[in-house]
Amino acid sequence: MYSRDFLNFRLYDSYIFAQKKKMSAVYHVVSPEKLKELTIAIFSKMGCSESDAHLAADVLISADMRGIDSHGVARLSGYVRLWKAGRINAKASPKLIYENPTTGTFDGDSGLGLTNAAKAMDIAIQKAEQFGSGWIAIKNSNHFGIAAYHAMKALPKNMIGMALTNASPLVSPTYSKERLLGTNPICYAIPAGEESPVIIDMATSAAANGKLEIAQRKGELIPEGWLQDSLGRITNKPEDLKGGGSLLPLGSIKETGSHKGYALSAFVDIFSGVLSGANYGPWVPPFVSFLPLAPDMPGEGIGHFVGAMRVDGFRPLEEFQKNMDQWIRRFKAAETVPGQPEVIIPGEPEARLEKERVVTGIPLIDAVYNDLESLCTEFQITMPDLSFRH
Amino acid sequence: MYSRDFLNFRLYDSYIFAQKKKMSAVYHVVSPEKLKELTIAIFSKMGCSESDAHLAADVLISADMRGIDSHGVARLSGYVRLWKAGRINAKASPKLIYENPTTGTFDGDSGLGLTNAAKAMDIAIQKAEQFGSGWIAIKNSNHFGIAAYHAMKALPKNMIGMALTNASPLVSPTYSKERLLGTNPICYAIPAGEESPVIIDMATSAAANGKLEIAQRKGELIPEGWLQDSLGRITNKPEDLKGGGSLLPLGSIKETGSHKGYALSAFVDIFSGVLSGANYGPWVPPFVSFLPLAPDMPGEGIGHFVGAMRVDGFRPLEEFQKNMDQWIRRFKAAETVPGQPEVIIPGEPEARLEKERVVTGIPLIDAVYNDLESLCTEFQITMPDLSFRH
Repeated sequence: MYSRDFLNFRLYDSYIFAQKKKMSAVYHVVSPEKLKELTIAIFSKMGCSESDAHLAADVLISADMRGIDSHGVARLSGYVRLWKAGRINAKASPKLIYENPTTGTFDGDSGLGLTNAAKAMDIAIQKAEQFGSGWIAIKNSNHFGIAAYHAMKALPKNMIGMALTNASPLVSPTYSKERLLGTNPICYAIPAGEESPVIIDMATSAAANGKLEIAQRKGELIPEGWLQDSLGRITNKPEDLKGGGSLLPLGSIKETGSHKGYALSAFVDIFSGVLSGANYGPWVPPFVSFLPLAPDMPGEGIGHFVGAMRVDGFRPLEEFQKNMDQWIRRFKAAETVPGQPEVIIPGEPEARLEKERVVTGIPLIDAVYNDLESLCTEFQITMPDLSFRH
Repeated sequence: MYSRDFLNFRLYDSYIFAQKKKMSAVYHVVSPEKLKELTIAIFSKMGCSESDAHLAADVLISADMRGIDSHGVARLSGYVRLWKAGRINAKASPKLIYENPTTGTFDGDSGLGLTNAAKAMDIAIQKAEQFGSGWIAIKNSNHFGIAAYHAMKALPKNMIGMALTNASPLVSPTYSKERLLGTNPICYAIPAGEESPVIIDMATSAAANGKLEIAQRKGELIPEGWLQDSLGRITNKPEDLKGGGSLLPLGSIKETGSHKGYALSAFVDIFSGVLSGANYGPWVPPFVSFLPLAPDMPGEGIGHFVGAMRVDGFRPLEEFQKNMDQWIRRFKAAETVPGQPEVIIPGEPEARLEKERVVTGIPLIDAVYNDLESLCTEFQITMPDLSFRH
C-alpha cells in the first residue's frame, strides 16, 4: 500500500480494492498493445498523420502504464471534443519559429500538445548534444499529457530533462479567490547509475483536480488544505470546486507557505506562457470544450517549456551516476516515523507500476472503457477486443 | 501590514512595533553605507582580497536592504567562526574546472559562497550572452547568502536568472524523521518592462528556520505544519527542533502534498550537490562551526547551481516585457478573499523595503549590533559610528 497514493493513485487503489472484492466487472483489464493500436486508430481518424498518431498514442499509453490514469486514454474523448470544437488542429505543421544556439520558440500550430512537446524536446536534446544544454518554449499548443514523458526523453542520452506546462485556470494565488493559475506541473527527469532515475512530476497545487473528482464520485470529503469555496472559505466538500471555488496552491494557506506554491505556479506560467507567446494566467484556454475561451486573449493557445542538459557538461558521467546511486540508496534507507512506510524516491511508484502493468495489463474503469466504445461508434471503428491475456 | 510577512519579515514587524511603542533602544538604525564599510573591513581582516571583501559585503548588505535580515550582517559572525574553524578559506582561488559551451563546474576552493556564487553567475551570464543560456554548478563552497542576489545579476542583461543551493540538513523527507535535506531554496529572477521584476526566492521547507528561532526567542508557539519532533510527531513547540526534531517540507504532511516539497528539495540538492561534486543530503556541512562534519563525506563543501537565459533567445524582448507587465498587473488586480490583503507579486515586498531602507536606514536588533561590536574587538577595529542620519 505504501506507494499507492504517492501521486494520483486512487484509481489504482480502487482497482486493487475491487479485485479483492471480486468486483472485477467494474474494471476492464486491457492489453497495452491493443489499447495503443486503438488509440492510434482514433488519432488517425481525427486526421493526424501516421507518425503523429503513433507519437500521441505513445504519450497516452505511457501515462496509463505509469499509473497516471487521469492523463492516459481517459483524456482521449476530451481531445476529440476539442478537435470537434476546432481548438485542436489534427493536421498541424508545428515548427521552430525563433532560434538561438541553445534556446528557441516552437509554434505548435494549434496541434496536440502530446506531439508538440515531444517534438520540441527532441530539438532541445539536439541543442544539448551540441552545446551542453537546450531550452524550447512552446506556444499555440494544447494539453501535453504527462510531463514526465517529455522530460524522460533526455534519459537515454544521459541528460537531465525538464518539462513545464501551464493549464486551465483553477488555482488562486494566496489571498485571492479568483482562478488565475492552472495546476501547472513541474517535471525533472534525472538519470542515475544502477538505480532507477529520479522522476519528479508534480502539480504545483496542493492536490490535483483528479483527486477531487474521485472524492466527489465516491461522495467523500476531502482534506482541509486542497480547496476554497467561491467566497474563499476553506472547504472539505469537493463539489465546491464546481460551485465556483478554486484549488489552493501547494502550502494550502499563507501560514504554511501557500505563497511558495503560488510562486512556483507563477514560474511555470511565465516560462510556459509569457516566454513562448502563449496565453497565461486567467487567459489559458480551458481543457473542456464546452467552456468558452476568455475574451482578449494575449497569446496563442497553451504554453509549455522543455529542456535538456548533458550530465557530462558538468562532470564525468560515471562520477555523477555513482553519487546519484548513493543519494537514492541513502534516502531509501532513511529512518521512518513509527507507523509510516519507507521513504519513496520521486518516480519510484510509477516505475514499479510500469513494470507491473506489462505483466498485469492496464485496468480501465467502466467510464473510460465506455468512452472508448463511444469513440469507436463515432469514428466507425469496430471496437476491438482489448482484453489482456497472461 | 499586508506585505510584512511575505517571506521572513518578522524582524521588521518587531521593529515597526518597537518604533510605535517608542522602544527604539532595542534597535540600532544604521546607515547602509557605513554598515557596508564595516563589513568590508571585517572580511578584509579575515584575509579576503579587496575585491572579494567588497563583493561579499555587497551580498550581505543587499539582504539587509531587502529585509531578509536573517541572511544579512546577522550572518557575519557565523562566517568568521567558520573561517576560524578552518572551514572557510578567505584567500580562496576559485576557478572553473570543467567546461562546455553552455555548462560547467566551478570549484569554490572552500571560499565564501557569497563570492563563489556571484562569480559563477558572471560566467553563466557570459555563456548566455554568447549561446543564449549558461549554467554553472558550484562545489567546494559555503553559505551563499540570499539566492536572489545571484539570480538578479541576470536582470540588467535582460536575462532570466536562477540560483539554487543546498544547505545543512534540517528537513525530513515525507515519512521520515531523519534530517536529510536543507531548506534548499529555489530562486528565479524574471525581468519585466515598466513593472518591477518578479523575484521568486523561497525555501522548499514549509517555514524557514529563522521563523522558528524568532518564535522560540519570543516564547511563542508555531503553526502546525512547520515542524515534527524527534519521534516524528507534529509539534507546535519551536524548541523541538533543537531537541532533535526536523522541519517539514513545503506541503507539511503527505495529505497536503509534503511529497512535493520533498521532491523540490531533492531537485535542489541534486542540482547543487550531485551535479557539481559537492556534498548532498545528510553530508552537507553544517553552517554552525561547533557542529562536526559528517564522516565519509562524498563530495567537497556545499553546492550551488546558477544559470541565466536570454529573454530574446525566445522572443523579442519588448513583446516579453509587455506581456510580463500585463501578467503582473492582472495578478495585482485579482479579487481578494474578504478580509485578506491584495495579491502580492513575488519579490514585491523586498523591492519596496529596498527603496524604503535607502530613506530610513537599516534596523539592526541588539544581538546583531552587539555581534558587530564583538567582531570589531576581535579584529582590533575601532567600532565606527554606524548611525543613520536623514
